[in-house]
Amino acid sequence: MRVAYQGEAGAFSESAARRVLGSEIVGVPCDSFERMFAAVGDGSADCCVAPIENSLAGSIHRNYDLLLASELTIAGETSMRIVHNLIAPPDVDFAAVRRVYSHPVALAQCTRFFAKHPHIEPMPVHDTAGGVRLVMDRRREDEGAIASMAAAEIYGGRVLLEAIEDNAQNYTRFFLLTSPGRGIAPRETARRWKTSIVFRAANKPGALFRALGAFAIFEIDLSKIESRPIEGRPWEYAFYLDFEGKLDDANVARALDNLNGMAEMVRVLGSYPTRW
Amino acid sequence: MRVAYQGEAGAFSESAARRVLGSEIVGVPCDSFERMFAAVGDGSADCCVAPIENSLAGSIHRNYDLLLASELTIAGETSMRIVHNLIAPPDVDFAAVRRVYSHPVALAQCTRFFAKHPHIEPMPVHDTAGGVRLVMDRRREDEGAIASMAAAEIYGGRVLLEAIEDNAQNYTRFFLLTSPGRGIAPRETARRWKTSIVFRAANKPGALFRALGAFAIFEIDLSKIESRPIEGRPWEYAFYLDFEGKLDDANVARALDNLNGMAEMVRVLGSYPTRW
Repeated sequence: MRVAYQGEAGAFSESAARRVLGSEIVGVPCDSFERMFAAVGDGSADCCVAPIENSLAGSIHRNYDLLLASELTIAGETSMRIVHNLIAPPDVDFAAVRRVYSHPVALAQCTRFFAKHPHIEPMPVHDTAGGVRLVMDRRREDEGAIASMAAAEIYGGRVLLEAIEDNAQNYTRFFLLTSPGRGIAPRETARRWKTSIVFRAANKPGALFRALGAFAIFEIDLSKIESRPIEGRPWEYAFYLDFEGKLDDANVARALDNLNGMAEMVRVLGSYPTRW
Repeated sequence: MRVAYQGEAGAFSESAARRVLGSEIVGVPCDSFERMFAAVGDGSADCCVAPIENSLAGSIHRNYDLLLASELTIAGETSMRIVHNLIAPPDVDFAAVRRVYSHPVALAQCTRFFAKHPHIEPMPVHDTAGGVRLVMDRRREDEGAIASMAAAEIYGGRVLLEAIEDNAQNYTRFFLLTSPGRGIAPRETARRWKTSIVFRAANKPGALFRALGAFAIFEIDLSKIESRPIEGRPWEYAFYLDFEGKLDDANVARALDNLNGMAEMVRVLGSYPTRW
C-alpha cells in the first residue's frame, strides 16, 4: 500500500502512517500538504496520513480546508506523542554543539533547552527529519538537529539527549484519508467509532444550540467542536463536530436526519474506528 | 504607553498594536510570547497585543494557555488582513532574486509565488520583519524577504511585489491584554461588545448542549466556540466561548449565572469593545 505523507522519510507523519496501517507500507513523501492530497486524488498513492490537530498548537486548518475541497473521506485516526530528541552525527560531543536545526514549531517547543544552553543557536529548517539529514550530510562537529527517534535511525544519527521538549503533553492527531470505496482501513479494528461532520447553522441566535440538540436528545457524546468563519460571508460560521458513534448506528442516523432538517449544509467527512 | 508584542519592529503584531491603541505608543519588542506576557506581568510594559487566531492557520493555543496562566484580562480586540510583500534592498532587480527569507508560516502562505518562480528558494527565519532586517544588513543583489509594508518602511527596503500571498482571506485576530484595573482601553470606542469565557462542562453527554442553553434562552449570539482537551484529564474538554454582549448586560449576567450553576468551572477572560 502506497501512503502519502508530508515531510521527508523519518517525519512524525510517517511514524503515524506505520502506526495506523502497519510497518509494511510504502511511504510516498510529499513536500507540501497540497501535493499529499493530490497524490491520493490522482492515484499515485492509495491514501494519506494528515496531521489534523496538535494538543499545543491547535487545529491544522489547512488540512481541514484541503479535505473539504477534496473527494477524500476519513477512514481512521491515530494520535502520536511528539517527542523531540537532540540528534547529531555519531562522533559529535554534546559539549561542542553550537547550532541545532529543526522545524520552527519544534524549536519553539524546546525553549527550556535553549534557555539552559544559551551558547546553542536554534536554526530553523523546513522539516524535522530534513534537519537530521542536513547535519548528517554536513558532518560538522558542532551541529545537531531536533527530530524523532525514527529520523535518527533512518539517517544514522546518534541521540545525544532524549525528550527535550518543554511540555510532555504534546500530541498530534492524524487522519487516515482515502477515496471512498477503495477499502482502506486501519490494521487493527477498534470497538469505538467516531464520526466527523461539518455543518453550517442558520445565522441566528440559538441556531448552534438547536443543532446540538439534534445530538443531545439521542445522548450522542461530542468529542470536538470548533467554529470557523466562512470565507466571503462575514459573521457566519461553519462548525466542525466530532462525535462518538458510527454513521449507521440508529441514534446517529436519527441525529443527522434532525440536523439535515435545520442546518443550511451538512457534510459527513467520515465515520471511522478510533485507536489512540 | 508601553506595548509589548512578539517579534521585531515592523512585525504584524506591532501594526495591530498601533491600530488598536494609536500611533503614539512605545513598542516593546519581545522574542517570545512568554516574554511578552512576562513584560506585562512585571510592569515593564502596560499591556500587550497578542495574536489569538488566524483565518487560515486557526487558533494560537499557546497564547490562550499563557492567558489562562496569567492574571491578564482582554481589554480589546482587532483584526488585521495579513498581506505578504516581496521586499529587497533598493538596488535589487526582481530578475536577480534567488533566495527569499521569511517566517515559515509566511513562506507556506506564498506557495503559488514559489511555484511560479522555481529558481527562487524560500529561506525560513524566525520572524518576517527579521528577514527584512537580515537582507538589508547583507545587501546582496540576489536576496529578498517576505514581510509587511511596515517592515519595508522601517528597514528601508523596497517593495518589489505586493500581496503575493495565495489567499487574500488571510486575517489574524489580536487581543489587547492588560492587568485588571490599569485602565487601558482601545482608542476608539465601539458600539459592539464581546465577552470571552472558558468553562469546563460536566463530563456527560448533553452537558455542552445544556451549557449553551444557558445562552440560547437569553438570545445571546455566540461568535466562536472551540473545545480543547484538558491536560492530564483524558476525554475531558474545556470550551472557549466568545459571545456578543457586555459583562454587565442583564442577559449576559443571567446567562453566566445559569452557567455557573451547571459547569464545573467558569472563568471570564474579558469583556471588551470590538472593532474590526
